[in-house]
Amino acid sequence: MLVAGATGFAGALAAHLLWRHPRFELIAISGRSETGRRLDDLYPRYRVPLEIQPLDLDAVGRIDAAIVAYPHAAAAPTVGELLDRGARAIDLSADFRLSDLATYERWYGPHPRPDLLPQAVYGLTELHRERIASARLVANPGCYPTAAVLGLAPLARAGLIADVVIDAKQGLSGAGRVFDDTTHLSMAGENITPYKVANHRHTPEIEEQLDDLDPAHPDLRVQFQAHLVPLDQGEMASCYVTPTRPLAEEDLARLYDEAYADEPFVEVVGAPPGVREVRETNFCRLFAAADAHTGKALVFSAIDNLWKGTSSQAIQNLNLMFGLPETEGLL
Amino acid sequence: MLVAGATGFAGALAAHLLWRHPRFELIAISGRSETGRRLDDLYPRYRVPLEIQPLDLDAVGRIDAAIVAYPHAAAAPTVGELLDRGARAIDLSADFRLSDLATYERWYGPHPRPDLLPQAVYGLTELHRERIASARLVANPGCYPTAAVLGLAPLARAGLIADVVIDAKQGLSGAGRVFDDTTHLSMAGENITPYKVANHRHTPEIEEQLDDLDPAHPDLRVQFQAHLVPLDQGEMASCYVTPTRPLAEEDLARLYDEAYADEPFVEVVGAPPGVREVRETNFCRLFAAADAHTGKALVFSAIDNLWKGTSSQAIQNLNLMFGLPETEGLL
Amino acid sequence: MLVAGATGFAGALAAHLLWRHPRFELIAISGRSETGRRLDDLYPRYRVPLEIQPLDLDAVGRIDAAIVAYPHAAAAPTVGELLDRGARAIDLSADFRLSDLATYERWYGPHPRPDLLPQAVYGLTELHRERIASARLVANPGCYPTAAVLGLAPLARAGLIADVVIDAKQGLSGAGRVFDDTTHLSMAGENITPYKVANHRHTPEIEEQLDDLDPAHPDLRVQFQAHLVPLDQGEMASCYVTPTRPLAEEDLARLYDEAYADEPFVEVVGAPPGVREVRETNFCRLFAAADAHTGKALVFSAIDNLWKGTSSQAIQNLNLMFGLPETEGLL
Amino acid sequence: MLVAGATGFAGALAAHLLWRHPRFELIAISGRSETGRRLDDLYPRYRVPLEIQPLDLDAVGRIDAAIVAYPHAAAAPTVGELLDRGARAIDLSADFRLSDLATYERWYGPHPRPDLLPQAVYGLTELHRERIASARLVANPGCYPTAAVLGLAPLARAGLIADVVIDAKQGLSGAGRVFDDTTHLSMAGENITPYKVANHRHTPEIEEQLDDLDPAHPDLRVQFQAHLVPLDQGEMASCYVTPTRPLAEEDLARLYDEAYADEPFVEVVGAPPGVREVRETNFCRLFAAADAHTGKALVFSAIDNLWKGTSSQAIQNLNLMFGLPETEGLL
Repeated sequence: MLVAGATGFAGALAAHLLWRHPRFELIAISGRSETGRRLDDLYPRYRVPLEIQPLDLDAVGRIDAAIVAYPHAAAAPTVGELLDRGARAIDLSADFRLSDLATYERWYGPHPRPDLLPQAVYGLTELHRERIASARLVANPGCYPTAAVLGLAPLARAGLIADVVIDAKQGLSGAGRVFDDTTHLSMAGENITPYKVANHRHTPEIEEQLDDLDPAHPDLRVQFQAHLVPLDQGEMASCYVTPTRPLAEEDLARLYDEAYADEPFVEVVGAPPGVREVRETNFCRLFAAADAHTGKALVFSAIDNLWKGTSSQAIQNLNLMFGLPETEGLL
Repeated sequence: MLVAGATGFAGALAAHLLWRHPRFELIAISGRSETGRRLDDLYPRYRVPLEIQPLDLDAVGRIDAAIVAYPHAAAAPTVGELLDRGARAIDLSADFRLSDLATYERWYGPHPRPDLLPQAVYGLTELHRERIASARLVANPGCYPTAAVLGLAPLARAGLIADVVIDAKQGLSGAGRVFDDTTHLSMAGENITPYKVANHRHTPEIEEQLDDLDPAHPDLRVQFQAHLVPLDQGEMASCYVTPTRPLAEEDLARLYDEAYADEPFVEVVGAPPGVREVRETNFCRLFAAADAHTGKALVFSAIDNLWKGTSSQAIQNLNLMFGLPETEGLL
Repeated sequence: MLVAGATGFAGALAAHLLWRHPRFELIAISGRSETGRRLDDLYPRYRVPLEIQPLDLDAVGRIDAAIVAYPHAAAAPTVGELLDRGARAIDLSADFRLSDLATYERWYGPHPRPDLLPQAVYGLTELHRERIASARLVANPGCYPTAAVLGLAPLARAGLIADVVIDAKQGLSGAGRVFDDTTHLSMAGENITPYKVANHRHTPEIEEQLDDLDPAHPDLRVQFQAHLVPLDQGEMASCYVTPTRPLAEEDLARLYDEAYADEPFVEVVGAPPGVREVRETNFCRLFAAADAHTGKALVFSAIDNLWKGTSSQAIQNLNLMFGLPETEGLL
Repeated sequence: MLVAGATGFAGALAAHLLWRHPRFELIAISGRSETGRRLDDLYPRYRVPLEIQPLDLDAVGRIDAAIVAYPHAAAAPTVGELLDRGARAIDLSADFRLSDLATYERWYGPHPRPDLLPQAVYGLTELHRERIASARLVANPGCYPTAAVLGLAPLARAGLIADVVIDAKQGLSGAGRVFDDTTHLSMAGENITPYKVANHRHTPEIEEQLDDLDPAHPDLRVQFQAHLVPLDQGEMASCYVTPTRPLAEEDLARLYDEAYADEPFVEVVGAPPGVREVRETNFCRLFAAADAHTGKALVFSAIDNLWKGTSSQAIQNLNLMFGLPETEGLL
């Protein structure tokens, strides 16, 4: 296994999870900065004693798969190179998450490898398990889509979403290893800030997944809004759904219980969850409630944005792709 | 001036603000616990060298006004006693916020002094300035209604709200001086939790104010949801409005600019605000945006829940009631 | 295995670690409050689906060992009962940490079971490994003594400590599941406070261990001072040693490297560590430096107060007592 | 008044304090970056509607005084220019804090304006009040020396310090508006880290001040160590003094009470203070205790590193220099 882009939060955690994984062997990590430095020096919490190298697939030798943790547009060419050499790839960027090229280019600019789009499988494990198992290229979902789509999938599949507002809150690890006024503890601490108002790139990703689940309502416009709150890892998507027909509390409960009864990493709970309950785990914890006063259905979806929202979901997908139990190395 | 109930966060801050106020004289503070202790011992940040005493209006002697910071139901009888003695009262509890007795009793139980309801004025300064100036009993708003109603008032007054979701986030001071699993730093830290799902007492308060502003849409059902996030003071109300007619960005901007052009404590800003920007101030900072994708109007309203949301708004009201400049002691 | 006192932070974490341990079976948890509640309800992060019961050793049946997480004085009788039934016990309280009864009673009051003191082994694994392996009663160290004694042991053993100041800082989990002004996020956040000034019960515990290591300087008086800082788990002991003879940087480095070369859980590092680096691990990370300006030796010792400082060290000891690899279930 | 270097935390706060000061008029702010941006855009909390400009003293016109908030070595030339034009200067950098040029150059490199050293007055208000009042150049102390020297002055003046360890803890604002792994909330949060081990530039500054107070012990070597803890503003200096003769608790208490009886901004308190108690104030809160066990004297000194530790102390000094009450604009 290889992690390309191990200097960022997502790549570093992916390297940590692979390093301690009982069945995978992490043989190399690369980075576009900090080269020559060991990962356990850059991230002392992750006891991975490998040196960060410029990416050189020739030097690395044969690998079965790689997790690519590059920014969008930078990821696609590397993914292509990996596939050419017969390796499988999990891409943590947005490059292969949207099946529609035009939508991608509207939000992200020119796509470096549109030819690969057809073979990409969207890596939200619980929704696309079978296709992931046989995929060569998995587009790991964004953290917000992971929380939101897991939270809304049972309603979408039942054709119950007429309108939806998703108000998401996330810790500062979601901003990445980016150093500015946004992430300095003296500005981010004791603060709550909405960001990318009415303009978040995760919106089309959520919409495509919900459309896919509910083809009868093809043009659902999702109101998605992200906020930064002062913690490290943790993400809460609070979803306010206007249903297509009145929903009783029991029906809602049954819908969610049934949808996720056999899922090892989705916990449907009976009280509002806190993100601490899923911190540093691959779990998604869901709570659904019907509001008798407004008639809306409320769903709260808690994940760790770096784990289930990014890197541990990548491992979950790798497990599937290599025929291992899905939970291997993740419990 | 007197503060009754100075041991809680709201009462203690009210005492602090009165103590340093250039025109008011704080002569006594009372509490139902911690009696005999000085306030600057209980709250060292507030350098108020008065002793907390059991409430005894005979012993206190003549006072012009009092801020009552008791829990609901406990507040009303004390407010009544103050009015009987000719003092004016600002009640921080919910006892006089709802004009409709039946609504009050559905949410809070029997009302101890329903006879006083007709003379109570709702103390959201920017909306009821004139009536507050001449009131003898002011019902200080809840912190969530303060943020939400200031945020939504321009839209409501223009009859533009067809549907609204209010997702509010608040620091732990909002939980009050309550000691349990919710407020312990080891549980509240690194956490985000929704609470009182589909069942928050501030909902009818917001609805009554919005109905009052927009009598043409009398039955608006507000979807209000509160969350705790790990900071001390600060509150963000993110409001998602389905408008009654399409709204252009410029129209929205003009609506807000005009509504608050002359307000000393409402700042309409051009970018999403953070709650740090209003911490320990009486300001409310508002940002409104039209989402071309969904057609919704988004309003973000940031206040300090303990200041504008509670205690400094009480001072703002007291200033009005005693003919002082509204900003006295608050800038 | 049994955990007695699973409702507190230490007991709950011990239960979590035993539940997920590959070789031990946790069969019961008890508590003096919250009985009837499941542990995964009280501590949702710990997915331990056992119910908290009043302690009833008859009902529990045969157990090989128990971790007792009661307050001092309450622990000793339960420990005695366990030993009587043939079980081994790890006591997380202070009841058996001090070998001298008079010292114990000066700090803690009457000892309920002084008869058991002679068989108790002090459970600082790295110092007393062999005796722990064959012990029936292990007195798990306090978190501050764990950090401080691991940090100072190489110097003490070499007879190099003439005088020492230990300034320790710890997160709020160190205050335990105690609900008051100290632990409320609105008071503990944005704060730094020294506590138990010149009067901390961990002082005699540290002194006894250092005396034991350096019998030639039997009356060392340790200046130990604790502080609370606003985080959850994590503890830093900063030790300022006046050495008995001048110490060169290289000598100090060699001393520490050699002392801990074979220790699986002590990491001697070349730069000042942060407590994040050991969070939720059983590691102790040490950095030692000679100050040429003052002639003092400085040692910084970082642990997670709940893990190596308490519950995971208990598991480390249990591993030893049952002949398992010391790291089992802890990496 | 002018603030040169208003883009950093210290300069921005100085500008805020001058802007709201009842007697001073802030007419310009300069910066070496962010020019053209308004300060209330860069720091929304500080409602200072001035534009940051490159420093151009000709354009600014006549000013009575300036606060210079540049890094060391960059500050001295600007200070010189100001003095040449007849303005008085408060320098927040280290350039004029050390009276001994050789010491300065050992720690900071070549001094750009050693000729100005003789006229510089060290701006620890409580120690040098009279000289500050008539000074043209005030070297504002470092935040650590402020806390430490105020804490130790009574003991030093009485010739009581034989040896001292100062263990200081500070929030992230102390790191300044510097963006890196140190200050990102995801690394700084949930962390405690010592930094600049055995090598902090504030050490000679503290030593010079203590020597000055106690000429009989001219070569005191201070063990000073700084730590970062996860908060924004706040600093605690915990001082462990080996006294030159035994000290009784009452003597120590009297010494501190008498030393600071008339100081408006030093509060000697009877219990360990928390830094929250002085946040966003110019107060220094001190607690002294004698440890009967070790014979040491312990002093805990709490300040807000950005206020009394930097910018509000500058205002306190400006008040003195312009014949105003020392507390003007600071209570």
